[in-house]
Amino acid sequence: MIKILLHGCCGKMGKVVSNLTEKYDNLEITAGVDKFGTNDMKYPVFKSLEECTSDYDVMIDFSRADALEGLLNFSLKNKKPIILCSTGYSNEQLKLLDETSKKLPIFRSANMSVGINLMNMLLRKVAPILNDSYDIEIIEEHHNQKVDSPSGTAIMLADSIKNSIDTDANYVYGRSGHKKREKHDIGIHAIRGGSIVGNHDVIFAGEGEVIKFTHNALSRDLFAVGALKAAIYMAKVTENGLYNMEDVIGLVF
Amino acid sequence: MIKILLHGCCGKMGKVVSNLTEKYDNLEITAGVDKFGTNDMKYPVFKSLEECTSDYDVMIDFSRADALEGLLNFSLKNKKPIILCSTGYSNEQLKLLDETSKKLPIFRSANMSVGINLMNMLLRKVAPILNDSYDIEIIEEHHNQKVDSPSGTAIMLADSIKNSIDTDANYVYGRSGHKKREKHDIGIHAIRGGSIVGNHDVIFAGEGEVIKFTHNALSRDLFAVGALKAAIYMAKVTENGLYNMEDVIGLVF
Amino acid sequence: MIKILLHGCCGKMGKVVSNLTEKYDNLEITAGVDKFGTNDMKYPVFKSLEECTSDYDVMIDFSRADALEGLLNFSLKNKKPIILCSTGYSNEQLKLLDETSKKLPIFRSANMSVGINLMNMLLRKVAPILNDSYDIEIIEEHHNQKVDSPSGTAIMLADSIKNSIDTDANYVYGRSGHKKREKHDIGIHAIRGGSIVGNHDVIFAGEGEVIKFTHNALSRDLFAVGALKAAIYMAKVTENGLYNMEDVIGLVF
Amino acid sequence: MIKILLHGCCGKMGKVVSNLTEKYDNLEITAGVDKFGTNDMKYPVFKSLEECTSDYDVMIDFSRADALEGLLNFSLKNKKPIILCSTGYSNEQLKLLDETSKKLPIFRSANMSVGINLMNMLLRKVAPILNDSYDIEIIEEHHNQKVDSPSGTAIMLADSIKNSIDTDANYVYGRSGHKKREKHDIGIHAIRGGSIVGNHDVIFAGEGEVIKFTHNALSRDLFAVGALKAAIYMAKVTENGLYNMEDVIGLVF
Repeated sequence: MIKILLHGCCGKMGKVVSNLTEKYDNLEITAGVDKFGTNDMKYPVFKSLEECTSDYDVMIDFSRADALEGLLNFSLKNKKPIILCSTGYSNEQLKLLDETSKKLPIFRSANMSVGINLMNMLLRKVAPILNDSYDIEIIEEHHNQKVDSPSGTAIMLADSIKNSIDTDANYVYGRSGHKKREKHDIGIHAIRGGSIVGNHDVIFAGEGEVIKFTHNALSRDLFAVGALKAAIYMAKVTENGLYNMEDVIGLVF
Repeated sequence: MIKILLHGCCGKMGKVVSNLTEKYDNLEITAGVDKFGTNDMKYPVFKSLEECTSDYDVMIDFSRADALEGLLNFSLKNKKPIILCSTGYSNEQLKLLDETSKKLPIFRSANMSVGINLMNMLLRKVAPILNDSYDIEIIEEHHNQKVDSPSGTAIMLADSIKNSIDTDANYVYGRSGHKKREKHDIGIHAIRGGSIVGNHDVIFAGEGEVIKFTHNALSRDLFAVGALKAAIYMAKVTENGLYNMEDVIGLVF
Repeated sequence: MIKILLHGCCGKMGKVVSNLTEKYDNLEITAGVDKFGTNDMKYPVFKSLEECTSDYDVMIDFSRADALEGLLNFSLKNKKPIILCSTGYSNEQLKLLDETSKKLPIFRSANMSVGINLMNMLLRKVAPILNDSYDIEIIEEHHNQKVDSPSGTAIMLADSIKNSIDTDANYVYGRSGHKKREKHDIGIHAIRGGSIVGNHDVIFAGEGEVIKFTHNALSRDLFAVGALKAAIYMAKVTENGLYNMEDVIGLVF
Repeated sequence: MIKILLHGCCGKMGKVVSNLTEKYDNLEITAGVDKFGTNDMKYPVFKSLEECTSDYDVMIDFSRADALEGLLNFSLKNKKPIILCSTGYSNEQLKLLDETSKKLPIFRSANMSVGINLMNMLLRKVAPILNDSYDIEIIEEHHNQKVDSPSGTAIMLADSIKNSIDTDANYVYGRSGHKKREKHDIGIHAIRGGSIVGNHDVIFAGEGEVIKFTHNALSRDLFAVGALKAAIYMAKVTENGLYNMEDVIGLVF
């Protein structure tokens, strides 16, 4: 049984993690920390790390970027791995993270989805094989309030493909007019509408066949799943260093 | 039993029509006409309309635009409806067509697919109902040799929507950068790759749900199906005039 | 501006309706009723209907089946339409509902989704046209905790098709072994996995083309959208009677 | 430049291979063999292997199973690799094939599609990683004349998954009634309709996300692509043995 200390346990994601943990036989939240702490959790909740004396194996953080320094010091003191799921770290914080990882196993991933990371790893492997004879196109769909297009995830996937095939791939963000597709184009299409959570398709279209990799995000639950997968992995880690979701997935090629 | 005279019977589409007709209990090809005529058809094949004396109810043409005048004269003489499936008529030919239709039932459709025409009719009906609360996006996929984008069909579908909702809809042919979707945008996305025959998706994305209309063309067989559906319909037509696939489908709202 | 009284305003769906209403310029919640009422709403919340004296145009109920009688009496007294979104009414309650609708405009729909109801109406219209030459298959996807299969919605769609084509359609719930598809089969396939909210595909597969109608439920928000659409419609209704989502959609054929 | 001898060059697939080869800069058909040989090919066509004296690097066969013995003897004599794309070999022929492969590089693959074989290799790698937390379902779609269901390819994919996860996976070929999905079920759903060429989806559905691998066959061209990929690979092979499409793809994990 892996004992989890959940920092930011009363926020939206903290609650999702709490509920989801109950589905895992090998995971248990032994304590939570939240400055807006309430008593309706199934585990003791402390107002601050200082007050928390509970035993634990690994800490998961779903709070805010500005909590970083306190979290790292607490983890160093306890010599326990930490899983950072907050976003928006400054460059200085990322540097601190990097340095601290020499003395502590730290998990942090630009993307917390198991599915997206897996897809990314597969694409790096598959793209060089298919690139010659198949045309590559990426389609992503998100809600109508999203400001940036294409999505960061779509660009990450495209970059992984581009770097793996080692050619001068050319991103095309839409098509209109009279012009044939160029061989090295990678079309990236951003669909926006309603409350779509997030879909990503990567298409390899060849003579007589199409191969497609699809990821559908259904809800923010997938970040909680990622955090718990990371917890299971990090609890066993014996070496200091910076770990991410690809390490957790452990697809060895 | 409807008796068909098939003009252009030895071309690619003529052969598809010949094979497909055998699946219909109520259709029979009684004769074919083709200047490259061979003897390996199950019906008599004549080198020219002049030589053809067979009895028939309706003629289907899958030859070339320049055969038009002869076909119309032959049909007028026999007082039989004609289904024109050749493409590339000049403006003068279209005018001739229009005039001749006052004396003859003529079928000609910009798009021969039952599915695409049906989808178009439904969109005209549905778009005004959904327009307020749903975002509309169109995605089309075609092979990598297609020169124009978006496809003519995608534009036809978009125009049908736009005209039906009677607002200042704005077509957007791709997205990149930092800018939210505008309410009146209709995104039209052209995917190009491999040998994809032709797919069209129209998406209505709202709060908590997405409604999607999809058409997948699998092969050019669908033009033959359209021609045979038209034959069944035109054989019963009693009034002169110009008919198209929407008349054949006969979706009465 | 339509004034809404929201009964069951503090439950899960009540909160979703409250948030969503703010996106509509022509809708306003003037009061809420909830026996677990709290003060953190933007409108006054009463513990019971008896205490509620606020003016309103239409009431939306997202509480429980056993509140029905009180709701109907309150609405009769105020001569205001009511939109019932609770589920699980007994046969006696449905009978009471029916009788009361002679004296009051009442809305109740077996399915609250605009998209599913629209799809259902379209299928009834389209199936008789396509039935001869296209094979019909239904695919639905839901989470792994769903007990019944196929989904009630899939059966509703299948029944609408079956009744509209007026033939002896035969439902097939899966295929294995050596046996060709029969012409009158309607395949209904129930996919189960993870936390999928709810997807329904209806496929018409013909020679050379496939036409597909798809509905994706993204979250329970779609029930709130349906309720608000109903509110807008019911506020204008002048005749007593029982109304459902198809009336609201108002697709006139 | 790789010189190809094409056996069965005048059949349906032979013609597809002939056309497709022209798109490859590094491939050239130097001669064809076909007992129904015609003169309208761009390369010399012989009526039998005995008459063929052309130089070549690798032979591709798209004829019939009963040609096997002659093909193997011819290849042994010329010491050139052979790519067998005919189907329906008897057990004795497969045994002969096996034995001859000790003296000759022979290519033969149960499935000639690059995409399906790639998908199969990826699934074997991915299934053990995802199996714990994701539900696996397979959906395949084929035309209405297909007799067996599920498709051989769907079963191959399912078996690859089952063998890789090393648990007692249980195939379920459809669902109806009141019963929740069991953890170890793999749902396999066979959709049949119209002239669908062949689609295969493998779904991994987890908490908050779905990962999907899709293959769409568009036409029989994909078999020709597979044969040409095999030709490029086999022309460089230096060791005798039996090779298949997975060797050609060369995805090294």
